[in-house]
This record gives sequence, structure tokens and C-alpha cells, in this order.
Amino acid sequence: MSSIDIRQLLSGDVRTLAKAITLIESNKSSDRSKKFALLKQIEPHAGNSIRIGITGVPGVGKSTFIDTIGTMFTSRGEKVAVVTIDPTSPLHGGSLLGDKSRMNNLAQGPNAFIRPCPSGGTLGGVASKTFETIKLCEAAGYNVIIVETVGVGQSEFEVKDIVDFFLLMILPNSGDDLQGIKKGIVELADLIVVNKCDGEAALQARESVNYYSSALQLIQKNSKWNPSVVMCSSIEKTGMLEIVQICDNYFKALKKSLDAIRLEQQAKWYRRLVREFILYEFEHSKTMSKEINSNEKLVLSKIATPVEAALKTVSKLFR
Amino acid sequence: MSSIDIRQLLSGDVRTLAKAITLIESNKSSDRSKKFALLKQIEPHAGNSIRIGITGVPGVGKSTFIDTIGTMFTSRGEKVAVVTIDPTSPLHGGSLLGDKSRMNNLAQGPNAFIRPCPSGGTLGGVASKTFETIKLCEAAGYNVIIVETVGVGQSEFEVKDIVDFFLLMILPNSGDDLQGIKKGIVELADLIVVNKCDGEAALQARESVNYYSSALQLIQKNSKWNPSVVMCSSIEKTGMLEIVQICDNYFKALKKSLDAIRLEQQAKWYRRLVREFILYEFEHSKTMSKEINSNEKLVLSKIATPVEAALKTVSKLFR
Repeated sequence: MSSIDIRQLLSGDVRTLAKAITLIESNKSSDRSKKFALLKQIEPHAGNSIRIGITGVPGVGKSTFIDTIGTMFTSRGEKVAVVTIDPTSPLHGGSLLGDKSRMNNLAQGPNAFIRPCPSGGTLGGVASKTFETIKLCEAAGYNVIIVETVGVGQSEFEVKDIVDFFLLMILPNSGDDLQGIKKGIVELADLIVVNKCDGEAALQARESVNYYSSALQLIQKNSKWNPSVVMCSSIEKTGMLEIVQICDNYFKALKKSLDAIRLEQQAKWYRRLVREFILYEFEHSKTMSKEINSNEKLVLSKIATPVEAALKTVSKLFR
Repeated sequence: MSSIDIRQLLSGDVRTLAKAITLIESNKSSDRSKKFALLKQIEPHAGNSIRIGITGVPGVGKSTFIDTIGTMFTSRGEKVAVVTIDPTSPLHGGSLLGDKSRMNNLAQGPNAFIRPCPSGGTLGGVASKTFETIKLCEAAGYNVIIVETVGVGQSEFEVKDIVDFFLLMILPNSGDDLQGIKKGIVELADLIVVNKCDGEAALQARESVNYYSSALQLIQKNSKWNPSVVMCSSIEKTGMLEIVQICDNYFKALKKSLDAIRLEQQAKWYRRLVREFILYEFEHSKTMSKEINSNEKLVLSKIATPVEAALKTVSKLFR
């Protein structure tokens, strides 16, 4: 890949931003040094945004919700970047979720940028590349970053670490956990939104609010913020103003500690990178691959069990 | 944990098997040597089963299907173990999918064992612990192993590597990819089952069969086996005999190469273990944690960017 014009990136040029993200996503060894140089250059320009994670099972209406709330942000002058994480496409890098057409209103405005982030094939999990994408968007001038995940588990816990505000969307129902969301994810939420509270679902929605409100009361949270449960309809556009208000309150309440939060996010990113780089070296170091291959022969000839062979390989590395 | 009575395990004692799997799943350092000893002891007794992976999105009817096909296997004298992988519960180790009550008929018989396998918190991905669980079940005398995954991506590609036969379940519909299944997963399938072909869905089912049959023709497969698409209804019990027949044919066709497949699975497991052990050492080695902590301070004091600090840390390890 050709290198990135940093001035163009900082000026907010969308094509340069897209190109920069593609570079970040590259797994090619030959792109590594360019990638690291770029990340170093943008670092002083990153961090000036509010980072919102939005999760929920497929069908809960995340896209329409993000379309609506994103447009509310842009219409008051914010620049909004949406990063969608799609775990369903690990091999091909394509993306089901990243379809811009799902966020029509938002995509049409000049102050929005929508980008799918393939989750597959990342050595250290989804979070480190998503975090790098967030930073690039920030450097390009976006000051509201929305990260969308599909709510099936693993990636939510990673995303929680890189966003400031975590919003869980659920559907109105009688209040049991049949929606496929685990309690663990509820514990992460700074706000629970019961979506599709339109028409006949209003009664069930009330039950959901009650159920999750009591659930939240049982969960010990930090003293700085009390998560709540609100109803909304992205289609009838009810509840949306309240949600934006809650976001604003949250970031007002957190203003003083945001620097500390950013540093903590940096430290966690660093630890993720260490893991990622270790696995990278493991896969690319000549000494290691020699060791790995010779011990694999012990497995194939049934001289050693896989566990024995693996312990032998690793003992070479950590003396 | 107390150690495992290997004789009891080999005799098929279910409580010992359950205990052994719990040991395997343990992430405690103090359980490591016991775990490795156990894996070494069972190794000669493992491998004598047919391993079937079954995947499909939530709601496709995997449980009912496994309940039916599992009971067909047990009723002809096989011992069936079902391992379900649940990515929705990374923190608490609990499991939505593992509910035995979803496989009522099968669970009631004496020749079936059903076990949820938590996917979260595993260093090297889901596959290595699932593979160890499979081996324990084999050592305990189970000769049909069914591994169930929820079809959202990553874990399917891992599971494909540890099973012999990979079955993809889909719902009858008009044949586009709106079911949330990526083409990549279709490529893995040795058999595609269109489930819930009962009542009014029959017409749509025909379309699905045609669509996926043509899709399969476009995919290059090995010459030993031609994947096909069949219709079934776990409720009306149609199509099930045909599917069991296809399984039997598959394992008959593969009989000669099964030893080679087993060796390849062992080699892949070995490589996974190496990755897992490297990350383990990285998290537990004193020299490494000293290095990690001192470089983290550079991040927190903004002297180094996370990328610079991580490169520095890893360069200590790989000289």
C-alpha cells in the first residue's frame, strides 16, 4: 500500500481516512512499519471525541437507531463516525453489517462516516483494530464515534474497554432472558434502551423496563453513574431526545475523569498490542518456526502428545 | 481440584467424566499439571469416534435436530456425547445453550452425555478446550461426538478443524443470504440440512435446496466427498433417516483416511496449544510482567505511544 498523506487525513479528507483504515486492517508484514508510523503520527490528534458503544442482538434495530441518533448529532453540528463490527465474516473480510444503505439518512449527510470493521483474522481480538480505527476517525475530526456490535458475546467485552459509554438495546418482551443476551452484558451497560416501543408493544415494553430496572439495581456499579432503562422507537422517533440528553449528561458527569479514562484505554490497548505482537512474532520468527516444525514431527510420529510437544516448544521461548 | 480417577473415566463413569471436563476447563495455574497429566493418560484411549459438527443460526432448530438424530444413534447402540459451544457467556461460564432440557429425549437415555462448553476466557480460542472435551468423551467410551455451535462466525472455523463431518443447518427461505450465514461457512459444509421443512414451508424449502445446491457446485471441494443439500423436519421426523445414511456413507468413504485426518487434527491442536501456552507464559512469567509493567508506565506518562511500548516489550522476548 502507498503511504497516507497525514495532512489530508487531519483535514478530514474521507478518501484518505478510508485508505488509512484499510492500511490499519492490513495483515501484511510489509505494511507493518507504515502502519506503526501512521499510528504514531495521529496519536497527538486522537482522543477528542465521545465514544459510544451500541450493542444488541440481530433484529433489535441497531441500524435504524444509529441512523436516527447519528442524524440528531450531525444536525447539531457534530461529526459522527460509525464503526460496525461484524463477526460473521472471518474469512473473506466482507461484511454483512457494514452496509451503508442501512443508515440512509446519516450516510447522506456530509458530517458522517460509516465503516464496517471486519472482526475475523485479527490476531489479538477485534478490539485493537477497532480502537485504531476510532483513533483515525478522531484524527480526521470526528467527535462522536459510535461502535456497533451484534451482541453475541466476546466482542462486547472487548468493545466495552475502548468506548466511554455503553448502550445495550433490547426488544420489548416479557422480561426473561430469552433474547439471547447474557446477564454479563447487562452488567456492562451504562444505558439500556428498549427499542421498538411502538404500537402494540407498549405494554410489553413497560414490563421490560421494570424487569431490567430491577436487574440493574442488583448490579453493583461505580458511584459516578447510575445506569437506567428507557423506552424508544426509532421509527416513531419517541424517546430519542431523552437518550441524547442522557448521553450529554453522562459525558458532562465524566468530564473531569475523561483524561484518566483515556489513559486507561491506552494502557489496555498497549497490553492488547503486546499479545498481538507476541503472536505475530511467533508466526513470523524463523527460530520459532524451526522449533515448531521439529516438534510437530514428534506429534505426527506419535512420539509426543500434542501437549508435551507444545510445552517443549514454548519452553524454548521462555527460559 | 482433586485428581481424576482414570479407571473410572475409562469405564464410562459420567460423574468422573463431568469432573474431568471441569478440570480441563479450569484456567487456574494450580490445575495445569494435573490437566496435562490427565490428557497424556487419556491420549491412547481417544480418537475412536465419529466427530460431527453441527452449526446454524439461533432459531434454526439445532437442539431438536440433535435430540432426534442423537436418539437415532443411541437407539442403534451408539454412545453419543453432545458438546455445545456457547459464545454468549464469556464472563460467567454459565451457558444458555447447554440446557439439557432442550434435548429431552436424548438426555433421558443412559447412552448420551450432554455438556455445554463455555467459549469465553479461553486463551487460544474455543477449539482447544472443545477438542480436549471431545477426547475425554472418547476415552469414556462415547463413539459419536456431536459439537454444536451457534453459527455466528469465528468458532465455526475453529470447530471445522476438530470435527470430521461438518453439517450446516439452514431455514427454508427464498435463498438469499439474509439468514446471517456467510458464504465462508457454506464452504465448510459436508452436508447442508434445510430444517423445518414442514407445513407451508415446503415450497420455500425447495427453493433453498436449489439455491444451496448451485452454490455448492461453485465451490471447489476435495474429490473424496460431494456435499449435498437435504430437507428435513425434526418435528415431523422426515428426512432424518436419509441424513443418518449420509453420515454413515461419509464415514465409510473416509474410513481409510481417518487415521491421516486424526493426525492432522492432532498437529493442528498442537499448534493451537503452542499459541495458548505462549500467551499463558506471557501472562504468568515474572520477567515478562516486569517488562510489561515498566513499559506500561511509558504509556501512562505519555513518553511512548502504545505501539512503541508494545514493540519494545516484545523485542525483549524475541531477540
